[in-house]
Amino acid sequence: MNITTIEQFQITSNFFSLTVAAMGAATAFLWLNRSAVSAPYRMAVTVSGLVTFIALYHYFKISVSWNEAYKIVDGALVATGTPFNDAYRYVDWILTVPLLIVELILVMRLGKAETVSKSVRLGILAALMIAFGYPGEVSADAGTRWMWWALAMIPFLWIVIELLGGLKSSIDKQPASARGLINGASYLLILSWAFYPVVFVLPMLGVEGSTAATYVQVGYSIADIVAKAVFGVLIFAIAVKKSEAEAHA
Amino acid sequence: MNITTIEQFQITSNFFSLTVAAMGAATAFLWLNRSAVSAPYRMAVTVSGLVTFIALYHYFKISVSWNEAYKIVDGALVATGTPFNDAYRYVDWILTVPLLIVELILVMRLGKAETVSKSVRLGILAALMIAFGYPGEVSADAGTRWMWWALAMIPFLWIVIELLGGLKSSIDKQPASARGLINGASYLLILSWAFYPVVFVLPMLGVEGSTAATYVQVGYSIADIVAKAVFGVLIFAIAVKKSEAEAHA
Repeated sequence: MNITTIEQFQITSNFFSLTVAAMGAATAFLWLNRSAVSAPYRMAVTVSGLVTFIALYHYFKISVSWNEAYKIVDGALVATGTPFNDAYRYVDWILTVPLLIVELILVMRLGKAETVSKSVRLGILAALMIAFGYPGEVSADAGTRWMWWALAMIPFLWIVIELLGGLKSSIDKQPASARGLINGASYLLILSWAFYPVVFVLPMLGVEGSTAATYVQVGYSIADIVAKAVFGVLIFAIAVKKSEAEAHA
Repeated sequence: MNITTIEQFQITSNFFSLTVAAMGAATAFLWLNRSAVSAPYRMAVTVSGLVTFIALYHYFKISVSWNEAYKIVDGALVATGTPFNDAYRYVDWILTVPLLIVELILVMRLGKAETVSKSVRLGILAALMIAFGYPGEVSADAGTRWMWWALAMIPFLWIVIELLGGLKSSIDKQPASARGLINGASYLLILSWAFYPVVFVLPMLGVEGSTAATYVQVGYSIADIVAKAVFGVLIFAIAVKKSEAEAHA
């Protein structure tokens, strides 16, 4: 899918730039505020900042690649022949999605053994999910895309079900003041994650052309801001609430 | 060995970019978490971050050099004539490999005299190993490559034997909770280090051509991520375990 107009090029460029700014701001906010939470929650806040830091780097690379893929000649948009490198998203996800799961597990403050086993199991499933998605993403054949999509949906659903089940069962052990935020984080996780497999199937459903290509880039950018920067700030807010509740206990 | 297709160019580019991201993330993680370990282990964690920081810089330079060596013209990959600078790897290794040994010695927390003598002796051997490897790497003659390879293997085996022997004999003095991780670090060290001399001999064994060239670049990238970023996080985990064990002692 290629874009064709200057407006499509600019809208997408601007969303990439917005994402770079949001990820950079979230990273600075999270790392500067590590000392605002009590010691057991600092790792959750550090890892949240790590996720936005890695995404900052990849959106910068995505921006540069976008600018190398198109140029404006005589008032019209022309593809330069250097392909836009969509793979940066997958390289980003294979690092950040397991870490997103880890930040959520860390802020729950489960027992040590459970934290490690859950992080390893769900982290590996997340990496598998991304690895299965990539061969489908780079294929133009609808059948191949559906096969890899279906394979990636298995670890995806497993993760969502286990995370939400685990969150629900541990939520009674969480301080009352943090329950609303933890519920919010759960719904944000489902909503933002659900976006990716939907965008993936758009070309298989006949949504093609340059307008759809713009929607896909803008959509992925918004989903990444919500799933990483907004989610990270929510993790920080939960860590603050839990630090306060435990200080008074 | 040169690559010939756009796919080979892109796969290698993506692995270089992944390595930059992984080294940057590891550096931030290690330096932000220095205070999570007790004072005697902070230097080990700082040096671990130094190793990934130096590698971050070199993989950035490697990426730039890779992009200067090839361009896409009319949908085909063309060598620009500017050679890809493989020497960045050796410059990186001559700085980081002695430091990798130092981080492992520091986390063992041996006596002061032993720490210094072991670091100096094994650090010099590591620098020799890299210095011997380089004249072989830049030679196209199989005989010359074998000679330098054999010379580099002497300090290599000396280091591996001394490190593993030293680790084994000191492991009984380590807290029980950290022994599993220290064993893990030993095996990770052997496995990741063993990769380099094997990649080096590939062209002498007749494994040539553009596919092999891609494997070599991707392989070195993965080996560097494991030997530096993953190893650094393992050193940090050992430092945390030992800090905890000693606080309760």
